[in-house]
Amino acid sequence: MGKVLCLTPPKGLCDGLVASLNAEAHFIERKKFPDGESYVRIPIPVSGEDVLVVHTGFPDQNDRVIEVLLTIDTLKDLGAESVTLLMPYMPYARQDRRFREGEPVSIKTLLKTLSNLDLDYLVVVDIHKEYSLSEFGGGAFNVSVLPYLAEKIKDEVEDPLVLAPDRGATARAKSVASVLKAPWDYLEKRRDRVTGEVTIRPKEISAEGKTVIIVDDMVSTGSTLALAAKQLKAAGAKRVLALVAHALMVGDAENKLREAGVERVITANTLARDYPTITKVIDVSEYLSNFLVEKGLA
Amino acid sequence: MGKVLCLTPPKGLCDGLVASLNAEAHFIERKKFPDGESYVRIPIPVSGEDVLVVHTGFPDQNDRVIEVLLTIDTLKDLGAESVTLLMPYMPYARQDRRFREGEPVSIKTLLKTLSNLDLDYLVVVDIHKEYSLSEFGGGAFNVSVLPYLAEKIKDEVEDPLVLAPDRGATARAKSVASVLKAPWDYLEKRRDRVTGEVTIRPKEISAEGKTVIIVDDMVSTGSTLALAAKQLKAAGAKRVLALVAHALMVGDAENKLREAGVERVITANTLARDYPTITKVIDVSEYLSNFLVEKGLA
Repeated sequence: MGKVLCLTPPKGLCDGLVASLNAEAHFIERKKFPDGESYVRIPIPVSGEDVLVVHTGFPDQNDRVIEVLLTIDTLKDLGAESVTLLMPYMPYARQDRRFREGEPVSIKTLLKTLSNLDLDYLVVVDIHKEYSLSEFGGGAFNVSVLPYLAEKIKDEVEDPLVLAPDRGATARAKSVASVLKAPWDYLEKRRDRVTGEVTIRPKEISAEGKTVIIVDDMVSTGSTLALAAKQLKAAGAKRVLALVAHALMVGDAENKLREAGVERVITANTLARDYPTITKVIDVSEYLSNFLVEKGLA
Repeated sequence: MGKVLCLTPPKGLCDGLVASLNAEAHFIERKKFPDGESYVRIPIPVSGEDVLVVHTGFPDQNDRVIEVLLTIDTLKDLGAESVTLLMPYMPYARQDRRFREGEPVSIKTLLKTLSNLDLDYLVVVDIHKEYSLSEFGGGAFNVSVLPYLAEKIKDEVEDPLVLAPDRGATARAKSVASVLKAPWDYLEKRRDRVTGEVTIRPKEISAEGKTVIIVDDMVSTGSTLALAAKQLKAAGAKRVLALVAHALMVGDAENKLREAGVERVITANTLARDYPTITKVIDVSEYLSNFLVEKGLA
């Protein structure tokens, strides 16, 4: 195993990784100058070494991006043999195409920029759309932690119904349903032609009496999830849980979700933040270290 | 003249430029999502056009950098014939070498990243060290506004003495002294061998009775400038002025400078901010537009 360098690592992830990999953790020096510029410093010699950088893209995405650009370019300058970036939460992944003329494809710009700095390998967790990674080229890997999270809550959910938030995002729900040996469906918006009322319901399966688990890559402001939860509770769901890789929980997301009847947001420690109490945070460091070893990246 | 696109332009600079260039100003749509991600959108067709983007690197440097990366990549994607970036204040320019082992050369990383996105031309104002621009290659230009600022205050200063902040930074002072037809010198730190007291004095010329003008590329927190001003006042300087291209004036810089006896900070409108009252801000848009025309960039 080469060197593990923790940049702005998610809570507990760096410690867990180095324990699983039987490596030593080194923390990259990191600060902001009074004028607002970011500073990083590599604390150990890296010439000829294979280096694994552990970082996150949230919170303060732009600061995180600048830090990682400075870090990668410096490691390459200092002669690192190879640099692997484990950035479980990849920011800007939702802007994966030009929804309107004149917009950036922000994830492309970001991945191109990382690739241009000669980053060798990139490992992300449950990126919004896996096809975005093609911009980086051959050295990019996406790993889903959702089946692992499902495994960890398997004994706590009775009679579950796994739901994708929409028709286009069923793959993740299926992977979770398979672990839980549960049925799955996707949520569908319908507008009543007479009253104009919008209902959100599972396409095929009734939520009545079920422990509903809504599966997604991430929850941000929680608005969509809250809307669905409210209607699922109204439709008789016994419990509503969310299972997401990345719990951004921006602003008053926690209150919004509680009020809508979401009991718990089950998530992985992919972000450098304190998580609100509605979340159940599952440490994925061992799972990710196994993935890195399996791919020959650690 | 092609299209002028204002991204996060310094106060008055975009309006002034388009007036001087007899062009139309278009404002790039710009916002932050609730989760902290930046968004930009090019409001006009740019295919086949020569585009000039007007932006600044301050305040909130990291946001400004991300915005400009997204913008340049998008303009190139949309088929702009050439993209020129006028970014009068270039952030990260002071980290122009590895002062300590393991540090980034941040300005190199930034210029390399801009160049990798196929930005064609880059125009900056009084960059900290001009040699940093070599990283960008042939399309980079540095223009000093200091002689122009000096011209504008020429009639307000009697018996001036122009001072560089140290021996290594005399070129800027000389350029200002030449406009003012004034003597110039540089400040020198001396430590008294007996008392240990540090004095900061001009190397050769007495400040007594003079209107002292300290010339530099920028003032950030103002600490160094305040220290020098205090001692120059104590040494009998009649007035102490600062003349800088970029007045960042971070934190309580204004109070610090006032208390130290600095009467005025004369500066250019290179930053997207409201300037504190101690500054005298001189619009350099006409000067910069002349430079762009002269270089064939507008």
